Amino acid sequence: MAARFRVRYAETDKMGIAHHSNYVIWMELGRVEWLKEQGLDYRQLESEGVALAVAAIDLQYRASAFFDDELEVKTILSELKSRRLRFDYQIARVSDQTLLALGSSIHIPTNEQNQAVRFPAHWLDELATKVTRG
Amino acid sequence: MAARFRVRYAETDKMGIAHHSNYVIWMELGRVEWLKEQGLDYRQLESEGVALAVAAIDLQYRASAFFDDELEVKTILSELKSRRLRFDYQIARVSDQTLLALGSSIHIPTNEQNQAVRFPAHWLDELATKVTRG
Amino acid sequence: MAARFRVRYAETDKMGIAHHSNYVIWMELGRVEWLKEQGLDYRQLESEGVALAVAAIDLQYRASAFFDDELEVKTILSELKSRRLRFDYQIARVSDQTLLALGSSIHIPTNEQNQAVRFPAHWLDELATKVTRG
Amino acid sequence: MAARFRVRYAETDKMGIAHHSNYVIWMELGRVEWLKEQGLDYRQLESEGVALAVAAIDLQYRASAFFDDELEVKTILSELKSRRLRFDYQIARVSDQTLLALGSSIHIPTNEQNQAVRFPAHWLDELATKVTRG
Repeated sequence: MAARFRVRYAETDKMGIAHHSNYVIWMELGRVEWLKEQGLDYRQLESEGVALAVAAIDLQYRASAFFDDELEVKTILSELKSRRLRFDYQIARVSDQTLLALGSSIHIPTNEQNQAVRFPAHWLDELATKVTRG
Repeated sequence: MAARFRVRYAETDKMGIAHHSNYVIWMELGRVEWLKEQGLDYRQLESEGVALAVAAIDLQYRASAFFDDELEVKTILSELKSRRLRFDYQIARVSDQTLLALGSSIHIPTNEQNQAVRFPAHWLDELATKVTRG
Repeated sequence: MAARFRVRYAETDKMGIAHHSNYVIWMELGRVEWLKEQGLDYRQLESEGVALAVAAIDLQYRASAFFDDELEVKTILSELKSRRLRFDYQIARVSDQTLLALGSSIHIPTNEQNQAVRFPAHWLDELATKVTRG
Repeated sequence: MAARFRVRYAETDKMGIAHHSNYVIWMELGRVEWLKEQGLDYRQLESEGVALAVAAIDLQYRASAFFDDELEVKTILSELKSRRLRFDYQIARVSDQTLLALGSSIHIPTNEQNQAVRFPAHWLDELATKVTRG
């Protein structure tokens, strides 16, 4: 029910902690996994010519992650419109359930020419029941 | 007066554009360069046992960056307190001055034990005249 | 008995495949996992003041990896001396067992001052029975 | 006559040095810059439907790179065939000319279906005079 992975050595920085830019990639892991859990494959979406361009992100960092820590990203779909989706994320360390970061991302459905489009109706229908308001 | 660099091939993704996570790294390039332009070296700060832990970031994406585009990050220090600094960023493509993204980051001075500390007074003094309110 | 993970979206490039630099990071995942399977924790090694500096790597790429492909890194310790270790890697796609790449890495035990040292005797003893000659 | 850039904070790891995987990306910076210096734009090559798939890489690491070090990648084209190119690289720190790493990469021209093709004749002709045998 959540993406799980370990902090890679290459993700650490000279402060000895995971560099803050990795959390953006980890939110993406959470998002891809969430879609998969709903039976929706991001590759399938892209094969229909639709991508979810990232329009905005934010992250609040609460605690550091260290090399080889097992982390978990809990993802919810917090907003769903035909031209805008929003996901919220909680990133935590599995061993002690420390909350490491809270984040969100806003997405615009786009076509292969990188133009904003309406999210395909059958995807909207499938996701409509999955929205969790914060 | 700004960090300049080109989009790396490795920074692109299968959408054919620079992956959105790179902007977080590019903001860091802007921040490091800004400090250097003020005569303040981030390595010097770290050698005094102080780091600027990242407490929060946000980014709004306006347009895509492509492989080998020359980009420019304009950075301002928009808030300066002894326990909190905020930087704002504009990331643009040099060739046509397209604004690609707006971002900000909030930082907490920390010691080598990763504990919040007051920003050293001589750094505060030096930076106090550099604050640009938005 | 092997590191398993999925290709991240951020790891793809504009050719639509996983960028070749990621394989170096994936070899590291294989190495860390291999040590763990032997009951040897890389964090434990580092806490004894010893790191395994990378002295050389090579990689031969055989086939491409795509977004969300599940990959597997099989790692063997192919050489063990007090001042030099060598690991060999096979990276394959799990679904069809396609071999994607063959690689190797050579490591020099170093201390915290980044100087070459002898690998601690108790680690050597533990690893001596694990060497697989190619 | 060479790619120059500074080591990014995000490129460092918990050993306090630039992570070894970055050198693969830096070789790519050297290769792209080298082509540009010959008047050959890698984007132009790709727009003709040809990519230079990476078939193999190797790297020997001699010394560490640190945050904010200015580095230089010297690149030569050491082998040129219609179906195979080889580049060799020297990566050095600019300030003291310390050699940090030696590397090479082997490339196969491919089309958009990721199939091996002959390198376009006009590119071969242009590059034929640029080969530096080691």
